[in-house]
Amino acid sequence: MNHDNILNEVIKSNNSKIALIVLDGIGDIRNKDYNYKTPLEYAKTPNIDKLVMDSVTGRMHSVSYGITPGSGPGHIGLFGYDPMNVMIGRGVLETVGLGIELEDGDVAARCNFATIDDEGIITDRRAGRISTEKTVTLCNILSSIKEIDGVEIIIHPGKGHRFVAIFRSKDKNISSHINDTDPQAEGKLPLKAKGNDPESEYLASIVNKFIARGYELLKNESPANAFLTRGFSSKPDLPGMRKKYLLESAAIASYPMYRGIASLLGMKLLKAPTSIEGLFQTYLENRQKYDFFFIHVKGTDQAGEDGDFESKVDCIETVDKALPILLKHSPDVICITGDHSSPCSMRSHSFHPVPVLINSEFSGRDNIVHFDENSCNNGGLGFFKSKYLMTLLLANAKRLNKFGA
Amino acid sequence: MNHDNILNEVIKSNNSKIALIVLDGIGDIRNKDYNYKTPLEYAKTPNIDKLVMDSVTGRMHSVSYGITPGSGPGHIGLFGYDPMNVMIGRGVLETVGLGIELEDGDVAARCNFATIDDEGIITDRRAGRISTEKTVTLCNILSSIKEIDGVEIIIHPGKGHRFVAIFRSKDKNISSHINDTDPQAEGKLPLKAKGNDPESEYLASIVNKFIARGYELLKNESPANAFLTRGFSSKPDLPGMRKKYLLESAAIASYPMYRGIASLLGMKLLKAPTSIEGLFQTYLENRQKYDFFFIHVKGTDQAGEDGDFESKVDCIETVDKALPILLKHSPDVICITGDHSSPCSMRSHSFHPVPVLINSEFSGRDNIVHFDENSCNNGGLGFFKSKYLMTLLLANAKRLNKFGA
Repeated sequence: MNHDNILNEVIKSNNSKIALIVLDGIGDIRNKDYNYKTPLEYAKTPNIDKLVMDSVTGRMHSVSYGITPGSGPGHIGLFGYDPMNVMIGRGVLETVGLGIELEDGDVAARCNFATIDDEGIITDRRAGRISTEKTVTLCNILSSIKEIDGVEIIIHPGKGHRFVAIFRSKDKNISSHINDTDPQAEGKLPLKAKGNDPESEYLASIVNKFIARGYELLKNESPANAFLTRGFSSKPDLPGMRKKYLLESAAIASYPMYRGIASLLGMKLLKAPTSIEGLFQTYLENRQKYDFFFIHVKGTDQAGEDGDFESKVDCIETVDKALPILLKHSPDVICITGDHSSPCSMRSHSFHPVPVLINSEFSGRDNIVHFDENSCNNGGLGFFKSKYLMTLLLANAKRLNKFGA
Repeated sequence: MNHDNILNEVIKSNNSKIALIVLDGIGDIRNKDYNYKTPLEYAKTPNIDKLVMDSVTGRMHSVSYGITPGSGPGHIGLFGYDPMNVMIGRGVLETVGLGIELEDGDVAARCNFATIDDEGIITDRRAGRISTEKTVTLCNILSSIKEIDGVEIIIHPGKGHRFVAIFRSKDKNISSHINDTDPQAEGKLPLKAKGNDPESEYLASIVNKFIARGYELLKNESPANAFLTRGFSSKPDLPGMRKKYLLESAAIASYPMYRGIASLLGMKLLKAPTSIEGLFQTYLENRQKYDFFFIHVKGTDQAGEDGDFESKVDCIETVDKALPILLKHSPDVICITGDHSSPCSMRSHSFHPVPVLINSEFSGRDNIVHFDENSCNNGGLGFFKSKYLMTLLLANAKRLNKFGA
């Protein structure tokens, strides 16, 4: 048996409500310019302090020790899937990040407009980073290719020089085991798409025809007279939140990527407020309709990536000020954590474990009186992998039976 | 995917320097004769205290809970290989511990001179623990057997009654799946060597011929008129430090066994100073030539095994006094830890987790102000397996890309 088998055996449903508040990139390291404190240590958070008095805390790794997770693996872990084994392909992530729904069996690729010379050699992999507006125009041109050999092709423009291509078939078997045609370097010819099984070989032949016809359509364009494809992938075959946890789930997130990941897990996407107060307000309005609420705060990660300590502190304090909105009708289980760390001094995601707090009638309370990285080192949850968090939340919600007699 | 697959995917190189300072057997338990302190708690370590203020700490297990590692598994773990799966055979460990290089495909056995009676029955498995000098003479006699059936045989004397036999062939396939001929008890006949596949069966027949010819050569010697073989093994097929981590590595260690393990992993063996100041001085002199420095201090383990608390404290204080030599040109990442615990009150290796400290610009700093076992219980690294340490050091050195989008 493994953890998931046991979870499967003991899971049950009840009327409890769970809120998972993800402060994206919340984890940080002490900063010498701010009295050797982390933003969480520096921030004034009276409401979270009050909550933490009645909570249990700890620290979580998402992927493994020393490994810096991207947003995909970071969130996959929080929702209880093993980010070592569950990969959301780049094509899928780009597509759902644009708010586009994928059907089962669809293969998605992320594509770049590019520039090639008379011999077909790539001179600019990003076509001089053409504007989003130009990309929209060029995607309209490519969209005249509706179908090849029984496979529908759907084009969606993205940001800048990026777009996605979705391959969909009702009656042909297609699969995504196809190499990137982007050789990752200028001065080379684009690669041919190749599959490694009959289904992906079939699709690869269509991809090659699509590229040939697309290049023909773009040949008089400048600088974007070509495109390169990458990250062919299909929706991962995951049990969603309902099947895995018997939870009716809703996402309260304004950024497309997080909405996209939530939609892959079958979460209902609620309206996307831009303010933190709005996030909690949306919870209040929908609290009777769902069991589980994924509430995503982006500001903390943005501040971390910008290296803006004060803005990170400010975002934390804004969350703290808004928390009473949620507490008006408190969920039975509240969890505050992050998907990864984004230390201001590193201006990037990092490998440092994230602090986590769980509050419920049954969470217990440890000795921690302020929610921050170093306090949580000594919390009652210890250090653990984020893939176990969902089980802890379900346990706090009394949604798990005893295992064994 | 597992941890190693991911590491493989995200690893990159840069110009950072990493120093791993291994205080062999450093971990200890509180001692009632010394005010209920451990040697690390008792020692005055102003330089390490200063370092720890800017570090993150924790505790590591090498093999598993409650398992006492030998020096082989202890070090294998520190270098990021799983000591549960990677075994360095006794024959290989004994050989490299004598400073002898093994070639790929060599099979090495550790051997004991022994005494047998007229019927061939073992009367003393260690031939009365004859002296090293006597063993050298007897090895010279055995060395007249240069080759059997196309397999070269190389004999090296060890300490006391011990020696190693290396079997080497340019054109025959030989392998090490051969039982010990030592029956582990007196009053028995030596066992016959047997293989369990064609390559080891072939070598076993040669081993039996070697034993027969050797006994013939020794028959008039007393008490060592025979020998017993054990631990047939070949070099483990490990990716070295360069392949696994893209690191140019150097070992600064004076004891043969640790030099041997380092050489198996492709580390350059630097000159072997006997003083602790000398170890750090060697780092200083070579710091521009390598990326990774394994600095091995033996005194802490010796003191632990001798049950000599004060000598262990003294060794720790000597390391502390010498530390500023290293800090003159500090590596980007410094790690201080041990390969296992060797509590003075146990006079042996033990199962207790070892304290660990990581210092870098990006390590973060936790609340720990003195480097010792009990402080590290509350550190920012938590409790983890030593096989993950290298990944943490690489992460601190910014030698790892983000995993996933």
